[in-house]
Amino acid sequence: MHDAPRALQSPQQNFGFPPPATRLFLFRIAARAPIDYVTRMKAEDVTMLDNFPRGTIVIEELEIGMTRHLNKVVTDEDIEMFAKVSTDRNPVHLDDDYAQDTIFEGRIAHGMLTAGLISAVIGEQLPGHGTVYLGQSLKFLAPVRPGDLVRAEVEVMEIDHAKRRVKLDTRCLVAGKPVLKGEATVLAPSGKFD
Amino acid sequence: MHDAPRALQSPQQNFGFPPPATRLFLFRIAARAPIDYVTRMKAEDVTMLDNFPRGTIVIEELEIGMTRHLNKVVTDEDIEMFAKVSTDRNPVHLDDDYAQDTIFEGRIAHGMLTAGLISAVIGEQLPGHGTVYLGQSLKFLAPVRPGDLVRAEVEVMEIDHAKRRVKLDTRCLVAGKPVLKGEATVLAPSGKFD
Repeated sequence: MHDAPRALQSPQQNFGFPPPATRLFLFRIAARAPIDYVTRMKAEDVTMLDNFPRGTIVIEELEIGMTRHLNKVVTDEDIEMFAKVSTDRNPVHLDDDYAQDTIFEGRIAHGMLTAGLISAVIGEQLPGHGTVYLGQSLKFLAPVRPGDLVRAEVEVMEIDHAKRRVKLDTRCLVAGKPVLKGEATVLAPSGKFD
Repeated sequence: MHDAPRALQSPQQNFGFPPPATRLFLFRIAARAPIDYVTRMKAEDVTMLDNFPRGTIVIEELEIGMTRHLNKVVTDEDIEMFAKVSTDRNPVHLDDDYAQDTIFEGRIAHGMLTAGLISAVIGEQLPGHGTVYLGQSLKFLAPVRPGDLVRAEVEVMEIDHAKRRVKLDTRCLVAGKPVLKGEATVLAPSGKFD
């Protein structure tokens, strides 16, 4: 248990290392989830740089203001892989010389790469596995550069229990400065259907 | 020149193979761009499955209704790479058995992976290199599955020459059916500043 505060403070820490019983206990508190949701987690789901292990928070357990985040350093390898997947080989992402002469004065990550970190928090943590992504708005506020540590945060804003719809505030920060903000709409998983 | 119609009809064709002079001629017609923008293109920029070679269309050359697209098959390798980059290892994307039991009845691509194809059209074709991505709205309408051929389309809706701002209609289709739609706002490159 005494590992938790360190893990929360430092992006280099994660929850992959405490023994399973501790992980279970932490996750139950964190997610206020019934035990059957907790036991679905696999080892690889808790080896990320998140504040909480990955899994599911059903709509019955969601609360306004509930927040989850992950921290990730965007690397050159990430940018190269995203270029391959998206086919977006715009030289502002890949060519140092070209990028130096642009308004950004250096290479930047694809905006949708950063947006992918938001969708990771939604799909893995809040509400997590079982969520259906309906929509997302994105405002790109500042560039993310190779080597930047991005913190992607998601917060519950509205819960429509009848429609199982949840509105989430979504934002990404680098060194405390917003680089991306927007809103997501999702269909949240329910304990009643599982 | 007689290669062009084939290339436009088939997503397996591309503009990487015509000799440079032909490429240049096609691109001038396509983009109505002055010759100096055309000559910036490199070989690797024209080996994609687009309707037009990649490069820049400056705001002075943009017109309402101008449209560009790309076609890409989303592969298992793409989904695996996107999972690595985003850290989103939600089993609906990666685990066949899990995904079979979900509403999707099989694995699906990350929504932001499909959105990345839109940003590729914007960043590589319309307006292309030199564009600053300001914002994007996304509505996820239907799942994209491994093996699906996605057509990402971008169309010019509004041009604000004073602010260099351009609004784009953005959509992705699989077999003619919309899977993703939204709007993008960008700062377009200008011939006056280059």
